[in-house]
This record gives sequence, structure tokens and C-alpha cells, in this order.
Amino acid sequence: MSTPLQPAVGESTSTDHLTEVRLARIALTWLTEPGTRSVHRLVGAYGPVGALDRLLAGDVPDRRLRTAVAARRAAGDPRDVAAAALAHTERLGARIVVPEDDEWPQQVRDLELLSLPGAERTIDQETAPPLAIWVRGQHLLAEALSRAVAVVGARAASPYGAHVATELGYGLAERDWTVVSGGAHGIDAAAHRGALNAGGLTVAVLACGVDRPYPAGNSSLFDRIVETGLLVSEWMPGAEPLRHRFLIRNRLIAAATAGTVLVEAAARSGATQTLRRALAINRPAMVVPGPVTSAMSVGAHELLREHPRTRLVTGLPHVLEEVGRIGADLAPPARAPRQPRDLLDDESALLLEALPRRGTLDPDALAARAGLDVRTTLRKLALLEDLDLIVRRDDGYAISVPSARPTTADPTLL
Amino acid sequence: MSTPLQPAVGESTSTDHLTEVRLARIALTWLTEPGTRSVHRLVGAYGPVGALDRLLAGDVPDRRLRTAVAARRAAGDPRDVAAAALAHTERLGARIVVPEDDEWPQQVRDLELLSLPGAERTIDQETAPPLAIWVRGQHLLAEALSRAVAVVGARAASPYGAHVATELGYGLAERDWTVVSGGAHGIDAAAHRGALNAGGLTVAVLACGVDRPYPAGNSSLFDRIVETGLLVSEWMPGAEPLRHRFLIRNRLIAAATAGTVLVEAAARSGATQTLRRALAINRPAMVVPGPVTSAMSVGAHELLREHPRTRLVTGLPHVLEEVGRIGADLAPPARAPRQPRDLLDDESALLLEALPRRGTLDPDALAARAGLDVRTTLRKLALLEDLDLIVRRDDGYAISVPSARPTTADPTLL
Repeated sequence: MSTPLQPAVGESTSTDHLTEVRLARIALTWLTEPGTRSVHRLVGAYGPVGALDRLLAGDVPDRRLRTAVAARRAAGDPRDVAAAALAHTERLGARIVVPEDDEWPQQVRDLELLSLPGAERTIDQETAPPLAIWVRGQHLLAEALSRAVAVVGARAASPYGAHVATELGYGLAERDWTVVSGGAHGIDAAAHRGALNAGGLTVAVLACGVDRPYPAGNSSLFDRIVETGLLVSEWMPGAEPLRHRFLIRNRLIAAATAGTVLVEAAARSGATQTLRRALAINRPAMVVPGPVTSAMSVGAHELLREHPRTRLVTGLPHVLEEVGRIGADLAPPARAPRQPRDLLDDESALLLEALPRRGTLDPDALAARAGLDVRTTLRKLALLEDLDLIVRRDDGYAISVPSARPTTADPTLL
Repeated sequence: MSTPLQPAVGESTSTDHLTEVRLARIALTWLTEPGTRSVHRLVGAYGPVGALDRLLAGDVPDRRLRTAVAARRAAGDPRDVAAAALAHTERLGARIVVPEDDEWPQQVRDLELLSLPGAERTIDQETAPPLAIWVRGQHLLAEALSRAVAVVGARAASPYGAHVATELGYGLAERDWTVVSGGAHGIDAAAHRGALNAGGLTVAVLACGVDRPYPAGNSSLFDRIVETGLLVSEWMPGAEPLRHRFLIRNRLIAAATAGTVLVEAAARSGATQTLRRALAINRPAMVVPGPVTSAMSVGAHELLREHPRTRLVTGLPHVLEEVGRIGADLAPPARAPRQPRDLLDDESALLLEALPRRGTLDPDALAARAGLDVRTTLRKLALLEDLDLIVRRDDGYAISVPSARPTTADPTLL
């Protein structure tokens, strides 16, 4: 059952009520781990306030849930804990976002549909949508995630993997796609940094409280992200990065984004799990291959071999092609009338996407970026120039400046 | 219509007749390029001798064929040319093999089935089976090709690609698979050399006569191949390596083998064509990925992205897995009762395949070769040891020597 977006009959929509809802949800996230399906069902039936009441009264049929909650309560009073957490959140200058807020990223509701046939492990069963999300940063959550791609991978990244992740993060951010990752060392950090370097938006989804992001070795990175992006978490401030929380967190990364790109993963790497989550909720699941001599690409290659729906991508143009197919829910809203570029053939479109938002690039570099041969590239560049979508300069081609073209409101054409 | 394996009614099976058939076929290969479908149909209807008679009499409905033949005849008398070519062949210590011989590799008949929908270019239409194959070397052609895998790729191979091709050639040969390639610089040469280094069998399919193999830069390699393997060609001795012949030759590489592996290819590389031929005749079409930063892997990645039936492989175990699925035609004949190894789970089977035929390998190297994590590897190695399929030594594991196991006639277990 889906989480009701409206209060149940008889409840008001007052600020007090929303606070009550927030507190109830916080208490629920403290009593059980995020993703717990039985709690999700309870909230769906009774609303968060009603669900909490019943849980604390022991009035729930699920014995395992009752037991877990009883054990947790030995550590404190859930309502007191929730109140303290809310106060702590406000002191941090952070906030908690719940499904009842406009700011809630609706796409995460797809986790209700996530079904892993034959799932035996708890982590594969307890994949319900989030109850609440803590946020540090200046952007509205739904807006930040409206055009977002996840870039994930191994902590022990090779220089190759780090390079690819950085480039991808940079290119995505340049084109106004939010780069989402887990803030970990290696591929995650590289992707975040690439986005930051492009002056774009990046979101780190943590497995601990947003007050002390883990790992500490990335703290200056997290500081930069808070300034211009978002740190988010399903756990309250002060929550520890317990081992199992990294896997739980991964489902949010997959569900919050239009698609997930796995850049590098060793055999049986945990990083492949995020991609499997994306597959399970029918999001584009993209994998970057690497040298077959590299142990760091074994997991990535395994995924490509074993899952027919995984998509091999070699760079930004392929990624954009994949997420560009997303249906109405996540596609950027139509901001302008149909553009000449909507009528382009695939190769011309790839080249247009390969051009940097600012500055020029020569045809050889463009050809390599778009994965095309030089002869086709030159031919299509001439076409794009005819359409006034690009201009030729001394050192290469550049996106055409809008004043030279029919007016459009699409900022990606700037 | 298929090439008749028996002489037409009324013709004898004498040596004279076979010679007449050989000469007719040689003449036909001189009059038109290999793969020409109209000639193939003619031979199917009238036999090679009858077909040649009709062609030379102008008694064929296909106007384009008549014109081509007429133009060719300006360069000489086809029957004289054929006689000279046969004599030249014998002087070389080479031979010409035709479908009427026991030595003919039957699997190339699958080229009759090759159909490329919407094919517009001549090279994609004229893909009929060979009329005849010239051979230099001591092995019977059909036998040499009964367990064969093609390993192909770019001429401008990177060190990575050359390494992978060499390893693959070595590993295949070690397991009694014939390594087939085109004798070109780069990937082809690396694959041939790998096979030779393993003391195995390799076959080079040339785009010119077997007397002066091209490229000349590989002549010492070709000498080694003649000694222990085979040089083959659909063109008579003295034939030049004209540009279009390389693409014509590729269909034979694909059709003669149980599967084709593309190791490395730049964008729009000709090397990808062999793989497309394999796809078109439903042979395993395998591709080795590489760094996405390498221009030399762009073509390989394109294939993996665009053709759902291509299979990503990272090394020998994957290749063996793919060609091991071939049906009765090309699978090694059952030589022994069901072995314990036939009952192995996939991972144990991969590890068993990853072991060298001779010598030992340590668990880490085995894990990397098989694409498994070390923990699983150790577990499965213990199982294989229990089954007496492998033995543990000081420096690693080795295939168990047959005298220590139930007798089997399967030489791959030696």
C-alpha cells in the first residue's frame, strides 16, 4: 500500500500535525531499519502517527517486528529520541523531509515495486521506500533529484576507474544532471569531484547521520558538497555507519535517480548491488567495461555477462542516451517548443551531446567522445553547423550561443 | 541449393573425374570472386563441371555474371589457368581441397544460410560457401577445424589487446582447440603466436595465395604455421591480397570455426565484420571489452552495445563456456562415459577450465583467470580435489594425472 500523501480522514493539515507526522516518522526510523516492509505496510494502513501508536502498543501481527521494536525500546523512549533528533537536526541547520512534503522525491515510491524473485537474504527483502530523508544543503530535494544520475563503483578504484568516474561526473553536471553517489572513497568520490569541478550539483547519499558524514577521510569533499549540493540520509544525526546500512542505503541511490552507472567493481563487489537495485525497479542499469586484465573490472563484466538488461556504456553520450529514454516521470519538463535538435539523427545527437557547454573541442576529440569515426563526425558537424546548433571556431567547434539562434528557454543550450 | 557431395548421375567417381572437378572449381574461383551466390547456385544445379561449361558457353541467365566472366576471360583461358594453378599447387607441396573430398570442413556449408537482411553492399550479399580451399600444411583440413575458435581483431593492436590475444591463443591451444585467424599484424599475429607457443595447432586464413602469404612482415610467423599448422586460402597461388579479398575471406574464418572472438577493434574497424558474419550464421560471437579510454576498443564496445547476441568474454573460461554449447555438428565427439566433471556446478567447471593442462597454478591466479573471488575459489578447489579432478602441490593446483583416476579416453583430461 502506498504511503498516503494526504493526512487520514479527521486529521488536520496544520503545522502541528505535520510536526507530529515528522516526529512519528523519525521514531519509526529509529525503531527499525529503513526499508522494513512490515513497517511500510503499517504506515500505509494507518499513517505514520497511527502506525507508531500501534507499534508501541504491541498491536501489530508481525511477531518479528514486535520483537525487534521491543528490543530497541530498551535503548530509550522512541518519542523522546525523535524529539531530540528533530531538535538536533534543526541545530545543524539541516531538515527532515517526509512524503507529506512537497519536497519529497516521488520517484522513490518505485521501491514499492521492487521485487527480487527468490530473495532469501534480509537485505533483498526489506527494500521498502524511505520513511523519511534527512537533508543538509540549500536545494529542494525533489528538484535536485529531478534530473539525476547515480555514478557508483568500487572503493579501491584504479586510476582508470577514477578517471572515468570523474569525467562522467563532470560531463553530467555540465549538462545540468545532478550526480548522485555514496560519498565513499574511490569511484563515488571521483564522481562527486567531477560534478563539483563543473560547478554542478551533486548529492551524497550517506549510510550514517548527515552530521558526521562517513568516511572521515572525505570530510573536505563533504564540506564542498554541503555548500553547493546536498548530503542526504535515512538515518538521524548521530547514527553510525554500521556495515549493513551501506547496502540499505544503496536502494535509495538507485530509486532516487533516472539511472545508475557502475564504473568499476571487483568480483562480488558491494557496488554491484546498487546496479541490481536499479535493474529490479526497471531503471537504466549502465556498466562501464574495463581491461579484462584488471581485477577491478571483474564485477562489472560479470554483470554485463549475466544480466541482459544491463547496458554497456563508454561515456557521457551513451549515458545520456539511456536516461533520455525515461518516461514522463523523470524526464525534464518540456521547456520550449520542439527544437531543431529534437529532429537530429542519432549520430548528430551524440555529437551535439559530446560538445562542452562552454568552450571549443576539435573534431578528433569530439569523435572520440561520441564514439564515432572521424569521417562521419565531420559530416555531421557540417550538418549541425548548417542548423545553427554549433559554430566553428579556429580551434574547434562550440555550442552556438542562443542570441545567434531562435530564442529558447532551455538552459542546456547555453 | 547445396553443393552436391556426390558426382551427378552418370559421372564416375574415378580419380580422373575428381581431377576434372578440381580443375573446374579452380577455374570457377578464377572467373569470379569467392562467395558469389550466382555461381554457387549454378554449381548446385549442374555440378562444378557442368557449371563451368555453361559459364564458358554464356549459357547462364545472370547477366551480371556473364559480363564479369566475359571480362575475366580477356585475361586468359580459364581451363589453362586452372591447369597451371593445379600444377603450381603441387610444386609448392600444397593441395586443393574441394567439397567432394572427405577432407572438406562441412561446417562452412552454413554460409548458405547466411542472410543479412537489407544487405545493400556486394560484400554483404555475396557470401556463399567456398568453392575450393587451398591448403599448405600437414593436417587434414576438416580435422584441424573440428575444434576451432577464431580470434580476430585490429591490426593496430594495443599492448593490452596483443596480450589478451596471445593469452587466449595459448590457452585455447593448450586445450586442443585450433586457433584460427587471418595472419594479419596485431591481434591475429598475437593469437597465432600464442597457439604456437603452447605447441598447439593454428590455421591462418589468407586473402591471397598460400605461396606468398601476406603481410610479408609476418613471413617467419607463416613459416612456423606451415610447419605445425595450416595456411589456407580460397585464392590460387600467386593471387594478390587485393583489398576486397580481406572482407571476403572473413566469412570463411567465421564459418570454419565454432565461434569467433573479437579482441580489439577501433570504430568501424574491418575486424568487426568477421564477428558480424559469425552472428549471421548463429555462431557464438564473443567480444573482449577494454578501457573505454582506448580508441582501440571503441568498435568492440559498439558491437556489444548494438547486438544483443554478442557475448562479453573476459578470457578463456568464458570462451570455452560459449563454444561448449555448440550442437552435435561441431562438438567433440563423446569419447568417454559421463565424467564427474560433467556434473560440476558452473563455478567449479570454470575453475577446472582455468587450470593449465600442464604445470600448477596458485589459487589467486586461478581466481583471476576464472573471474571468481578467492573465497569461492578455495571452496571449489577443495571440491575438485575431493573429486580427484585436481591435485594440490606445493606451489598450487594441477589437473590430476589420469593414472590416478578412472580411465578415460578424453585427451583433454591429460
